[in-house]
Amino acid sequence: MNNISIKKLLENSQEYSDSFYSTSAWVVANRGNKKIRFIEINDGSTVENLQLTFKGEKFDFDILDQIHLGAAIKVQGIIKLTPQAKQPLELIAQEFELLQDTDLDYPIQKQAINVETLREIPHLRHRTSLIKTVMLIRSTLALEVHKYFSDNGFLYFNAPIITSNDGEGAGETFEISDSNSKNPFFGPNKKVTLGVTGQLHAESYAVGFKKVYTFAPTFRAEHSNTKKHAAEFWMIEPEVAFYELKDVINLADDFLKTIIRNTIKKHPAEFKFLTENVDQNLLNNLNHFINTKLTIIDYADALKELEKVKDRFEDQNIHFGLDFGTEHEKYLAAEVAKGPIAVINFPKEFKAFYMHQNQDNRTVAAFDLLVPGIGELIGGSQREVIFDKLLNRAKEVGISQEELQWYLDLRRFGDSGSSGFGVGFERLVMYVTGVDNIRDVIPYPRTSGNIKM
Amino acid sequence: MNNISIKKLLENSQEYSDSFYSTSAWVVANRGNKKIRFIEINDGSTVENLQLTFKGEKFDFDILDQIHLGAAIKVQGIIKLTPQAKQPLELIAQEFELLQDTDLDYPIQKQAINVETLREIPHLRHRTSLIKTVMLIRSTLALEVHKYFSDNGFLYFNAPIITSNDGEGAGETFEISDSNSKNPFFGPNKKVTLGVTGQLHAESYAVGFKKVYTFAPTFRAEHSNTKKHAAEFWMIEPEVAFYELKDVINLADDFLKTIIRNTIKKHPAEFKFLTENVDQNLLNNLNHFINTKLTIIDYADALKELEKVKDRFEDQNIHFGLDFGTEHEKYLAAEVAKGPIAVINFPKEFKAFYMHQNQDNRTVAAFDLLVPGIGELIGGSQREVIFDKLLNRAKEVGISQEELQWYLDLRRFGDSGSSGFGVGFERLVMYVTGVDNIRDVIPYPRTSGNIKM
Repeated sequence: MNNISIKKLLENSQEYSDSFYSTSAWVVANRGNKKIRFIEINDGSTVENLQLTFKGEKFDFDILDQIHLGAAIKVQGIIKLTPQAKQPLELIAQEFELLQDTDLDYPIQKQAINVETLREIPHLRHRTSLIKTVMLIRSTLALEVHKYFSDNGFLYFNAPIITSNDGEGAGETFEISDSNSKNPFFGPNKKVTLGVTGQLHAESYAVGFKKVYTFAPTFRAEHSNTKKHAAEFWMIEPEVAFYELKDVINLADDFLKTIIRNTIKKHPAEFKFLTENVDQNLLNNLNHFINTKLTIIDYADALKELEKVKDRFEDQNIHFGLDFGTEHEKYLAAEVAKGPIAVINFPKEFKAFYMHQNQDNRTVAAFDLLVPGIGELIGGSQREVIFDKLLNRAKEVGISQEELQWYLDLRRFGDSGSSGFGVGFERLVMYVTGVDNIRDVIPYPRTSGNIKM
Repeated sequence: MNNISIKKLLENSQEYSDSFYSTSAWVVANRGNKKIRFIEINDGSTVENLQLTFKGEKFDFDILDQIHLGAAIKVQGIIKLTPQAKQPLELIAQEFELLQDTDLDYPIQKQAINVETLREIPHLRHRTSLIKTVMLIRSTLALEVHKYFSDNGFLYFNAPIITSNDGEGAGETFEISDSNSKNPFFGPNKKVTLGVTGQLHAESYAVGFKKVYTFAPTFRAEHSNTKKHAAEFWMIEPEVAFYELKDVINLADDFLKTIIRNTIKKHPAEFKFLTENVDQNLLNNLNHFINTKLTIIDYADALKELEKVKDRFEDQNIHFGLDFGTEHEKYLAAEVAKGPIAVINFPKEFKAFYMHQNQDNRTVAAFDLLVPGIGELIGGSQREVIFDKLLNRAKEVGISQEELQWYLDLRRFGDSGSSGFGVGFERLVMYVTGVDNIRDVIPYPRTSGNIKM
């Protein structure tokens, strides 16, 4: 039996009792003596390892003893169940080949390495149990995102990355240039940047396809050196025609619960590892969220909650118009909702021009979904459908009509309104894994002053 | 019965006979008289439309007559099967609301518009049947890509987009700058570019995860104004540890056949449309490919085939060392293989430094998969595993060791060899839809001198 992953083998151990098994993988532990040797290998399908047992005259135990951690090996043998042991089975080795050993300066050894040191070796750190676990869950979450939207009739839409359109009318962007400055790639005097959002383009496709989503890298040149900001991150942005604010909050809630539930199911070993090594309450908290109705609170009511305990905050000026800081967001999620919470109807001043203006004339039909430990995970809104209101608000915030005409025109061409939201994918991975730094949930992080490889 | 897409309704028409149905969608046809009116609507779930029939005193036929194409409407009624008609069913309207009409300058009307004109309105052109069909198939293909790799135990890996590493050691790249030139985002004197490939980074993850793939935007600042080159395009790059050239060719073949087969199954209406409107042989050709063993030919033998008919080509200098032009590639696929063909073992001179050097000392274990009408769809190789050979070849092509050290180090740290390939996703969409210009298979195309929105 070849080509079965170690994950499948361990999860269905009964089925494979006494079977022949052959695989290639990497050594993660090597102990024993001159008569018996136990080598644990990992093939990247799970954080769990397969134990190989070597015994008998067939093997040169001096050679086996010299194999270093990280070495690539090929092995064949017979599966034996081990009901008394921690692992459900082991492989009694019959044939063995050392494909490629590691040099002595291979940095990943038995002793634990702190995450800061691991960030210096992004090309190797996924071979530790922590980063391996995070990346396995990240991959499954991404697949579940695509599966959720596909199952619900959404079109996967690819917004352009290089854009001549400044989506939010704010935020620092990366500019693109090419070596040939006399003959610029996209033409003379054209300012082109890396997209900060795919939303405006997604709106154009929501008119016609009804339900669309993006899932792509986005870029912000903000010099924020925090645990939750990266210059390059992946964003998921669904946009649904005919949806209003309440519909899109329901969508966000169902989306999160579904993909988290499915991801937990697929990774028992990885969530066990995270609960033991990162946050002992992780699974409890996630399951609580999955099984609880989402708390929705009006911005004005959230202010009252913050006012009650304002002494806790650095920014104690709790007033209508306050743009919540992470401290306020975390409090609302962790203490008020004891889980995710959606705050709705924010003052229009600090929200984007395209959001639907409520009848009170001072708030917009927006929502932020806040989660404990992180703060904002999702931001979304119902979009303004009335051409003149949209245009006036764009002008108020200093966006020229000319540049935005194509977007405004959607409202003249059968756009009767849509709603959507954006999820920072890395923040989602942080929330689901309990890992508290964005640098540890994306393979090669890019942050202010920092780019490796 | 609400929220069922028109696609599901039409595909399961028997089931919905005499049911109540309610939906919101866009008008694509409007004809009739003062007593009966037929309005066709489309909701973007399929290229097919739902016919609404309005009759009786309930409706104001003057108002219905005035509704323009592209208008957003909401309708309720009863499904009636129409076994005598072209469409399987119609909706006898009971309630109707015009949500948002279109202005008179809405450009998509009954008469056909050529694709060049449509490229001027990328925010609207998906509301034509052709672009709608292409984007529906594009979305399904993307999902099938993720599904294929997930079903086969691959980790979805996100290579960085902004990179300080020049992957192929060749090719013009876009450089990144930010407005703050005194304090450059990634530090002083750091050249950072948009990635042209995720392969080198993917190789680092193949060691440890065994099977990984990327699916992400990539960028080339080549001023090629052809039908198949774009500055921004999506690429799929699987990389598998322990695989050799033959394994990865099998993977490419199985991958293509599986995702194309599944996509065809999901889009009967769209492939009917393409066969009638784009290429009458489309489905025959795709089915031929799916059901036929892949042709594999050595580069040296491919030269002999080209030599036989060299009069056909503009470049008639058929010799060992020839880097095939599109004319040669198309001939090999369309005439020699009459379908996709994998050419293997190319001269090392025009292939990348990281490819496994064959024993003949002049070729590398690379393959190009060529398809009729397009030429190269996939390029891949077995990677060189021997540190010194890899380093020497890198130096020969002018890449500094310092810059590449992290990548070279993989070979010192348990990397016993991997193989992988890259698929240009837009070329795949072109092949599957029969559409012959890359500008028409990506929502907002970016090409030399051309960027809209």
